[in-house]
Amino acid sequence: MSRKLSPDERAAQLRELNGWKSVANRDAIERSIEFADFNEAFGFMTRVAIKAQEMDHHPEWFNVYNKVHITLSTHEINGVSELDFQFARFVDSIMKNG
Amino acid sequence: MSRKLSPDERAAQLRELNGWKSVANRDAIERSIEFADFNEAFGFMTRVAIKAQEMDHHPEWFNVYNKVHITLSTHEINGVSELDFQFARFVDSIMKNG
Repeated sequence: MSRKLSPDERAAQLRELNGWKSVANRDAIERSIEFADFNEAFGFMTRVAIKAQEMDHHPEWFNVYNKVHITLSTHEINGVSELDFQFARFVDSIMKNG
Repeated sequence: MSRKLSPDERAAQLRELNGWKSVANRDAIERSIEFADFNEAFGFMTRVAIKAQEMDHHPEWFNVYNKVHITLSTHEINGVSELDFQFARFVDSIMKNG
């Protein structure tokens, strides 16, 4: 079972990532990403969806045209675990290669 | 250019659809759909994404695991047009076949 990260652990992990922050009124992290167009945005979502299924860890996300907003938390512990940061690092890695 | 539907036209079209309603504080229509799991939800989203690109008319949508929430409006007229109902009918048609 996943373990909820301490505030210090979370802060340390957030500092290593691009554009992720804690959600204001919830125990979760979030990132907004803007793409050139819908094709790029949904292509990105498809890569993330396949990874999510592989990890059995799924995002909450919103898309409109070229914008994607992702929220991550670990439901079974109702908070942020190492799994969310693994997921966030995957998202960042395909942003760089995309 | 798309034309904003009259309240009567919109109401008549909504009556013919499954599960769509007007959004409370906005000139748009919405539907929530629940699938068996993430695989089915994202498979549905992929079919809708391809259609959206073909129609050059894109949804606002939110997904978490097996749930998808879709909001439709026509940005250039800041309201609901025939295009949104074409889109909604496509969504409903793949729900029936899915």
